[in-house]
Amino acid sequence: MLDILNDIADRVAEKVRPRWREACMGEELEMGADGTPTLLIDRLAEEIIIDHVKRSGLSWDILSEEAGRVGKGGDRTLVIDPIDGTYNAIMGIPFYSVSLALGRESMCDVDTAVVLNLVTGDRYTAIKGKGAWLNGCRIQTRRLDLKQAVFLVYMGHFATDKDFRIARLGRRCRSLGCSSLELALVAQGSADGYYLHTDVYEKAIRVVDIAAAALILREAGGDLVELKGGRLDMPFDLSTRSNFIAYGDESMLEVLR
Amino acid sequence: MLDILNDIADRVAEKVRPRWREACMGEELEMGADGTPTLLIDRLAEEIIIDHVKRSGLSWDILSEEAGRVGKGGDRTLVIDPIDGTYNAIMGIPFYSVSLALGRESMCDVDTAVVLNLVTGDRYTAIKGKGAWLNGCRIQTRRLDLKQAVFLVYMGHFATDKDFRIARLGRRCRSLGCSSLELALVAQGSADGYYLHTDVYEKAIRVVDIAAAALILREAGGDLVELKGGRLDMPFDLSTRSNFIAYGDESMLEVLR
Repeated sequence: MLDILNDIADRVAEKVRPRWREACMGEELEMGADGTPTLLIDRLAEEIIIDHVKRSGLSWDILSEEAGRVGKGGDRTLVIDPIDGTYNAIMGIPFYSVSLALGRESMCDVDTAVVLNLVTGDRYTAIKGKGAWLNGCRIQTRRLDLKQAVFLVYMGHFATDKDFRIARLGRRCRSLGCSSLELALVAQGSADGYYLHTDVYEKAIRVVDIAAAALILREAGGDLVELKGGRLDMPFDLSTRSNFIAYGDESMLEVLR
Repeated sequence: MLDILNDIADRVAEKVRPRWREACMGEELEMGADGTPTLLIDRLAEEIIIDHVKRSGLSWDILSEEAGRVGKGGDRTLVIDPIDGTYNAIMGIPFYSVSLALGRESMCDVDTAVVLNLVTGDRYTAIKGKGAWLNGCRIQTRRLDLKQAVFLVYMGHFATDKDFRIARLGRRCRSLGCSSLELALVAQGSADGYYLHTDVYEKAIRVVDIAAAALILREAGGDLVELKGGRLDMPFDLSTRSNFIAYGDESMLEVLR
């Protein structure tokens, strides 16, 4: 299964990488199934993925940020964000990815995941119960040292005071605008946590954004929890949104509360 | 002059790009002239630049983050940050640069500048009075539309409440950890402003960080000012630090105050 997901990610990279700076990539086509505008770069990547699944004769449904649910009754569901970090891509910030997760009903049963950084080609993969890898090398989260901690935090118009408090807790803070790659940084032990707390439900995360990266982080030794503390799970739909805390080392939870 | 700076930047890229992920790149060697630790990746890049200037018979002094002032009485000073965004580089965040500015005594008399993104190879250049370019194409700042605005803001342990207030003013906010490339994003019209306001003097910006990017932004139609409003200038030394506001469109100043 991982080979198939890698192959799909490679096809997206092949088509999108040479074109991401073209001004037309930011053109708004229509409203996506998730209620945000579909841009040309999203559509381009999504079509590549859907075409590939159909032509390969795979009996998978697809849940995508843009097209919504494609297919019905397949034995697996491929949960995709064709471009995670769309606004980075169209703004010229070289930090965006394609995110692919294969599961059945919800985030916690995803068993195979690929997140491919479409700028650097860095490939994060995970298989449930087997581990997580960056470019084929096993990755692991790191232990928290608060004095040297690096936190990734959602910022912007819908951020809350809590986001800002956490931004100052560690030594360094980044807000990079691509949640799948930000979770991957926690998974590889480059950062200690990722915190998303928006003050409007419509700006919280969707399962398509993080289904793949959640498995990668969990297989690397970290976890994602709801703000109130329960393990984060999200059904395969586009209507559910959630705030969350992701961490490499569980002791981060004590720090954050 | 621009050809020489481009050549120096290319040499840094050639040596650093293949090695930036090696774990040893984050090794602390000693305290740099600016009072922060010199890491192996900084040293590697700095040696390439200093060697090149010496071997080329250029009668330039050099002011560098790590080595301090090299030479005395040269007819020009090359102000360098061998690696801007060192912590991004060693943390695996693919967003860091080499920054080269040629001037005489202070930031405002810099006449030639190159900032090279060492991950993507994107090259920002400027010549005083002639303009600014990204990969050879003229760049210009954009007009401010607050509803769609993107602000780049310094975050982390030493950030202030004002940083956070500004992070929420626009539509989107990023904190990317590499001031030269963040200013370049404002110059190319991808973002509307960059705001740095730390609560300790030792964490504010130095001339080596932004000498090149300041010329690029100004030649693209933007400007940098002190928090109290005067045009930002900084002498060529490592002891002066400053907070500042950078913008593409002057109307941002009204929004921020």
